[in-house]
Amino acid sequence: MGVSPLNPDNLRIVLVSPRNPLNIGAAARAMSNFGFLHLRLVNPYDVAFRESRAAVNAAVVLQAAQEYKTVPEAIADCEYAVGTAGVAHRELQHTVLRLEAGSRGMRKRLASGRVALLFGSEKFGLSNDDMSYCHALIRIPTREAHESMNLGQSVAVCLYELIRTSHATSPEPRALASSADLDRLTHLLAEALHSSGYIHSDSTEMKIRRLLRRMNLATHDAEVLHGMMRQILWKLSRDR
Amino acid sequence: MGVSPLNPDNLRIVLVSPRNPLNIGAAARAMSNFGFLHLRLVNPYDVAFRESRAAVNAAVVLQAAQEYKTVPEAIADCEYAVGTAGVAHRELQHTVLRLEAGSRGMRKRLASGRVALLFGSEKFGLSNDDMSYCHALIRIPTREAHESMNLGQSVAVCLYELIRTSHATSPEPRALASSADLDRLTHLLAEALHSSGYIHSDSTEMKIRRLLRRMNLATHDAEVLHGMMRQILWKLSRDR
Repeated sequence: MGVSPLNPDNLRIVLVSPRNPLNIGAAARAMSNFGFLHLRLVNPYDVAFRESRAAVNAAVVLQAAQEYKTVPEAIADCEYAVGTAGVAHRELQHTVLRLEAGSRGMRKRLASGRVALLFGSEKFGLSNDDMSYCHALIRIPTREAHESMNLGQSVAVCLYELIRTSHATSPEPRALASSADLDRLTHLLAEALHSSGYIHSDSTEMKIRRLLRRMNLATHDAEVLHGMMRQILWKLSRDR
Repeated sequence: MGVSPLNPDNLRIVLVSPRNPLNIGAAARAMSNFGFLHLRLVNPYDVAFRESRAAVNAAVVLQAAQEYKTVPEAIADCEYAVGTAGVAHRELQHTVLRLEAGSRGMRKRLASGRVALLFGSEKFGLSNDDMSYCHALIRIPTREAHESMNLGQSVAVCLYELIRTSHATSPEPRALASSADLDRLTHLLAEALHSSGYIHSDSTEMKIRRLLRRMNLATHDAEVLHGMMRQILWKLSRDR
């Protein structure tokens, strides 16, 4: 799966002072979707978060979530900490990497040790103090005119970037109809057009031949079309 | 920005029978975040969606959203339609591509014409009938144990994949401290340790030299450390 083998069990998602239980639930759901199961909450506003109804099937993540009072306590056992920042944070001493670049570093670190990925509160993001505990800052490349993302969506996008692979290939190409299959279809269609009074010139059959080849017909689809055309021809000849 | 230049103005996000106004708002917000502004709704359950409070700053997208009764009407002016599907849809006649692969095709089509990206209702996804209007189906690579994503998060992840670039590079590397800077620091630290009674052997200075080089210090950080060490040394010599 991609360049470095991913070890999702080494990641800790840390939500710092989240305000809205719906967002905590949404973050947990995205974590479960992408196979990252360790959630940590620093000073959550609403301790009733475990009942969040947005967390479809994310009960396992929410139940196992751990609570901490401060950021350094929440990431004490992690070797590498990455904070999420926004355009507003560009002035920081810290370098802010685009998510695509930052996640390469995270994947590498995840292979050998625990990594924390921190998200700030919905309203204020991470504080300068929170960020001083981070080895790197990342930013989802939203447009400057509307930069601020929903917390649950940010978590989903960051985790997707970690699990995505640039090597995702198209599945096995479908077996295409043979030239002989297409020729049979061509004859049938030409005959049907002829029976129907379609203006027929010498070039009609050639046009059909090219048309059918542009369609990249799969074997099965050519068979289906063949059956349809035979039926139409039968009806045309009966009505003649 | 990536392989093909992206034309976000050619994309139509089509939500088919969405049930929850919060999800419509969340989808609109993600669209605005990533610069895709054209939303179409097919048969939305709750026509009060425009007031959705989750749609922070997404009013422009929601206000301009167009409503349709059926999928073919909603995508009539599009040259290429892509449906989002799940593992449950793997049995379909249609080939289901992973998002990474499917979005390459979408980027290509977006360069020259209108493309529709369809999302089904929260509960049932796209119907077989809806999907028969699609040229391709894509799937976000969630894990099979918990495949079903939140609608707003799905939209965010799909649009992120469209705007992400594999060429995102790290920013300009920071100017690193010169060897002479590091040597000055080495001497200061060695002197401070000496003054403090730290056990001093012939190899101490060499150890410090290597230690400082492993830190990859930026010029500015070396200056700060230099200032700190000078202050400490001053204090140490005053107290002697």
